[in-house]
Amino acid sequence: MTQSIQAPETVATGEQMHRLMAELYPICRSLTGDGVRKTLEIVARHIPLEIHEVRSGTRVFDWTVPREWRIYDAYLRNPQGDTVVDFRKHNLHVMSYSVPVRRRMALAELRPHLFTSDAHPDWIPYRTSYYGENWGFCLAQTVYDSLEEGEYEVVIDSELKDGSLTYGEFFLRGEESEEIFLSTHVCHPSMANDNLSGIALATALAGHAETAGYRHSLRIAFVPGCLGAIAWLAANPGCSDRIRHGLVLTGAGDGGPFTYKRSRRGNAVVDRAAEHVLRHAGMPYNVVDFTPYGYDERQYCSPGFDLPVGCFSRTPYGKYPQYHTSGDDLEFVRPEYLEQSLKVCRTILDVVDRDSRWLNLSPYGEPQLGKRGLYRGTGGPGPRARDMARLWILNSSDGTRSAMDIAERAGMPFEVIVEAAEELCAAGLLRRVSDSVGCADTQGKSHGLPKAEYLHSDI
Amino acid sequence: MTQSIQAPETVATGEQMHRLMAELYPICRSLTGDGVRKTLEIVARHIPLEIHEVRSGTRVFDWTVPREWRIYDAYLRNPQGDTVVDFRKHNLHVMSYSVPVRRRMALAELRPHLFTSDAHPDWIPYRTSYYGENWGFCLAQTVYDSLEEGEYEVVIDSELKDGSLTYGEFFLRGEESEEIFLSTHVCHPSMANDNLSGIALATALAGHAETAGYRHSLRIAFVPGCLGAIAWLAANPGCSDRIRHGLVLTGAGDGGPFTYKRSRRGNAVVDRAAEHVLRHAGMPYNVVDFTPYGYDERQYCSPGFDLPVGCFSRTPYGKYPQYHTSGDDLEFVRPEYLEQSLKVCRTILDVVDRDSRWLNLSPYGEPQLGKRGLYRGTGGPGPRARDMARLWILNSSDGTRSAMDIAERAGMPFEVIVEAAEELCAAGLLRRVSDSVGCADTQGKSHGLPKAEYLHSDI
Amino acid sequence: MTQSIQAPETVATGEQMHRLMAELYPICRSLTGDGVRKTLEIVARHIPLEIHEVRSGTRVFDWTVPREWRIYDAYLRNPQGDTVVDFRKHNLHVMSYSVPVRRRMALAELRPHLFTSDAHPDWIPYRTSYYGENWGFCLAQTVYDSLEEGEYEVVIDSELKDGSLTYGEFFLRGEESEEIFLSTHVCHPSMANDNLSGIALATALAGHAETAGYRHSLRIAFVPGCLGAIAWLAANPGCSDRIRHGLVLTGAGDGGPFTYKRSRRGNAVVDRAAEHVLRHAGMPYNVVDFTPYGYDERQYCSPGFDLPVGCFSRTPYGKYPQYHTSGDDLEFVRPEYLEQSLKVCRTILDVVDRDSRWLNLSPYGEPQLGKRGLYRGTGGPGPRARDMARLWILNSSDGTRSAMDIAERAGMPFEVIVEAAEELCAAGLLRRVSDSVGCADTQGKSHGLPKAEYLHSDI
Repeated sequence: MTQSIQAPETVATGEQMHRLMAELYPICRSLTGDGVRKTLEIVARHIPLEIHEVRSGTRVFDWTVPREWRIYDAYLRNPQGDTVVDFRKHNLHVMSYSVPVRRRMALAELRPHLFTSDAHPDWIPYRTSYYGENWGFCLAQTVYDSLEEGEYEVVIDSELKDGSLTYGEFFLRGEESEEIFLSTHVCHPSMANDNLSGIALATALAGHAETAGYRHSLRIAFVPGCLGAIAWLAANPGCSDRIRHGLVLTGAGDGGPFTYKRSRRGNAVVDRAAEHVLRHAGMPYNVVDFTPYGYDERQYCSPGFDLPVGCFSRTPYGKYPQYHTSGDDLEFVRPEYLEQSLKVCRTILDVVDRDSRWLNLSPYGEPQLGKRGLYRGTGGPGPRARDMARLWILNSSDGTRSAMDIAERAGMPFEVIVEAAEELCAAGLLRRVSDSVGCADTQGKSHGLPKAEYLHSDI
Repeated sequence: MTQSIQAPETVATGEQMHRLMAELYPICRSLTGDGVRKTLEIVARHIPLEIHEVRSGTRVFDWTVPREWRIYDAYLRNPQGDTVVDFRKHNLHVMSYSVPVRRRMALAELRPHLFTSDAHPDWIPYRTSYYGENWGFCLAQTVYDSLEEGEYEVVIDSELKDGSLTYGEFFLRGEESEEIFLSTHVCHPSMANDNLSGIALATALAGHAETAGYRHSLRIAFVPGCLGAIAWLAANPGCSDRIRHGLVLTGAGDGGPFTYKRSRRGNAVVDRAAEHVLRHAGMPYNVVDFTPYGYDERQYCSPGFDLPVGCFSRTPYGKYPQYHTSGDDLEFVRPEYLEQSLKVCRTILDVVDRDSRWLNLSPYGEPQLGKRGLYRGTGGPGPRARDMARLWILNSSDGTRSAMDIAERAGMPFEVIVEAAEELCAAGLLRRVSDSVGCADTQGKSHGLPKAEYLHSDI
Repeated sequence: MTQSIQAPETVATGEQMHRLMAELYPICRSLTGDGVRKTLEIVARHIPLEIHEVRSGTRVFDWTVPREWRIYDAYLRNPQGDTVVDFRKHNLHVMSYSVPVRRRMALAELRPHLFTSDAHPDWIPYRTSYYGENWGFCLAQTVYDSLEEGEYEVVIDSELKDGSLTYGEFFLRGEESEEIFLSTHVCHPSMANDNLSGIALATALAGHAETAGYRHSLRIAFVPGCLGAIAWLAANPGCSDRIRHGLVLTGAGDGGPFTYKRSRRGNAVVDRAAEHVLRHAGMPYNVVDFTPYGYDERQYCSPGFDLPVGCFSRTPYGKYPQYHTSGDDLEFVRPEYLEQSLKVCRTILDVVDRDSRWLNLSPYGEPQLGKRGLYRGTGGPGPRARDMARLWILNSSDGTRSAMDIAERAGMPFEVIVEAAEELCAAGLLRRVSDSVGCADTQGKSHGLPKAEYLHSDI
């Protein structure tokens, strides 16, 4: 079952991203249920989304879509009848997928169902139990410590019944059918950085793409974590052939350094592009190798797919104290950080989208740039960056190297190289022979024109 | 001429290794002769050995087995008739392969035949002259300095006559005909670390193999250094095809850091295994590149054979003051160091023996480990090592990577990865597709299943 | 139009090199004209040169040979009639390729045609304007600052008329038709390091080659920078097939560290040889990657040729204050630095010329060096360098490794390895199977004898 919704409002600045997050923040999301649906409905006010529902009981590879979880209310009342933990005050208070409970029990019996964070006694931790029959309350350690012995009223007004798992998909056709793929998870309840920031970032990137246009087609999956990604993969058997470059987006709103986690391949174009962009971004960053733990890159990079999908974030999961607690709120994430993340991701997408190879059409010695107005005249102490970019691309463009290869070798930003290439094309000195779409680059190999083409030709 | 001797007593602890060394210590070994035979006879009380004799005059590649050297007595008497140097007190006193002498001569004439160690005036140095007609005495510098002028009685009661060069071989058939090969030299007179420790280590490893069993067959050569190794190679023309992994064992009883010297290939499975094991052993170590000088890896790694044979020791030859002197005695080597060496070598052999590749049978997304009891439930701050090992092997097992590759990539010990693999096999999630025996790994290349097998199959 | 001149006088020492530079220093060279002709005529007194003239208007790839520039006189006279700038005092005073001028003009009108060096107020900078109709004077900042307002007499007595571009070529046939190629530019007016030092170095290397002889043929181009190199390339379409190793020579007389700039290939034999020689030269040096800016390696390494040509200098262009100013005079360059440069370049040429592969004819175990007098007898603490060189070359010579590969692996100078190889050849233990000429080495690959030749042969 699918439905389409059209979208008008723009999300293009850090402020607009933060505003969207604020709207999504109160919703109680989980692996399944109306929280995800409501979230996607709000996103769809900004960008067109196609909504997919996968029925409970559906096999998706090794997994089965579970029953849908609905949560209406949950609270703990102490022996005096005071409500000491209340789902309506914060939806992290109830462990996700808790089965219904309506009992009175002694504190001693209740304790194994209470979860706190030792390290941060004021914050409510985030817990789930998707695949076991279980229930629990999460609460601040300070509250836990104040609980007195006696009989408590324990109410979790939830349901687990056949329904479906919901995900959304944005798609924008480009000149090429090959795709750039983005994915963000939409299953976390009221936490801002993980992962409303990812949703806002994906929404802003979709909006940018609609305005700016890409050569590649752009597909963005808004999926519940893990099972949602697996369900998406199961529904998209051709994705391995279409997806050329991908990113999982998450944790984009804190003030920590950018973190790019490489795809399983390690040397995919997106891996090199992300590192290239971060190296030139002028802000702190880390690039880390793939590990099979983390966000949905685990699924996209499973060996049966091995997609060229890395993970973009600022501080990685688990490395900031607020991670998976109520401390990850709307104050923790800032518009300016969101906007920096947007800018870096836009640049990464520009690089993977525009990367191309060119062929020098005047390869015997340097061409005379001066007579074409492409070289400074009477020389001072050295060439300007633009001159150097022209020399680099002319010298390197034997058909075997892409613009990104050349930018890396020259130690210059990709866009300076590409702009120089475009000028030289216009001057008839270069011809674009291919972009990286469909090229060996996506396999980590180069199969450009043989250099020998030059060497044996008639000069 | 061959003979077999059966063996009962176990050499499995540092103490037992040291006791065996103490038994072997007084014997005067040389390149040939009864010292080697007696040594092998004692080893054969612990492990089964096949004894080989190669006659004097036999051509072995570029060499000819020399006459056998027999030494009965040797001494120097000063002008007063006092015995100042006496072979019976220490067999290092006579230069190995000294021709017979029975003369009186002035000290001045004698001096060119006297060898001392400047750096260590109390120790007797070790000298040999296998391939020239020569004779000499080795003595402490302090003794040398006390010699007074006058006529000395010089007696070397030795013989050089046709006989043979002796070596021993242990062999234990495994499931596979491919072999792990160990070699240790048995030609040094009374010195403990070089190389009674190697003999004791080889004996203990043989005993362990008989108990524990290996998939590979295990062959251990107990050979006189250099010529013995060359003779063994000449007698085993098929060794290049059979030997998959090898180690020369020497200097295993001092307290210095472990030293692994890579095979000529540099990236053989044994090279990677030794480095892996040492990295996780928690004790100081060095890994050094192959050089064409050292122990019998010189022969096994000669270009006509190029066997994957590295060299295991603690402090390398020449780097400890006691090296090749009477200071290398039974006090210098300690049971605890011997036992550490045994443990490390056992682990290296385990790795090369057990290294395998597996295929993930549920490669599309992660399999659901929770429903198989293979994943922690409600999550705390991060996965345990066992969980991570499972995720690593599942993610990496596309048939192209061995367990050692995966262990290296994950930064985990080999055995943790292999144990996880075995559990996943038992759960039906992995299938072992090959061990490294007979695989390209031994050639430093990988030719596993094409990844494409997954990507094009019907999902 | 070509002419040959025979040459007698030797340039073989730093003093002789400096003397040649002193003779060439006063000449006003430019891209074209009699300055280059006179320069080549003087060089041709020392080594045989073939002189080539390429007519104005000739197309050379993307360029056209311009009109020839002749300069007779140039001066500025101030309102008082005093000559304040005079070409006859220093030929840097006139911008190269200045069109004729004979006018009176106000200082304000003159200023845009005056060039100074801010950083070095006492030095005259060097400026050219080959391809635009322009004129100018270069002068010290101190002189510029003293100019008073008023009307100046401006005279440039020059001509631009059809003529030719001149270059010279030295060629010495070796045993092989494959060539070592050197190039040096001859177009700079009175500056010593850039590039009379390069001319002197090339002349000395040619002289050395005539005496010492090379296996390769040696070709040296004395060309005006940029266009001269392009014209040479246009006239030598077969150069890609013949040239195996090459160096651009420049800036060889200052006291800075040696600088080797790699060819575009980055791993050509000459790149590895230069780095090897510099590593063992015992003097400071830098090895830098190719960039498409600098001297005529820009042309030789253009993608249509991609010749294995690096650039040898001491301090790189632009990195010494005197660069391209009158400060680069005969005092700035010293005979001892020139001689060091000569020695290093000779050694680099020796390496690329003599590099070979050998085959160990006794590859099964080590051969018995002692019986051939090729090994020290009764051993002390370790082998001498000569012994180690023998062991290295024997162990490595399976036909896949060149002497330079072996020298690098052994950490020994090339010549020690080659001398050991020649001794072992004489002893019948090695056979030379090829030099690097025509081998895959020049393509950065190795295709030596398959190692398997040994392993499957009958032993």
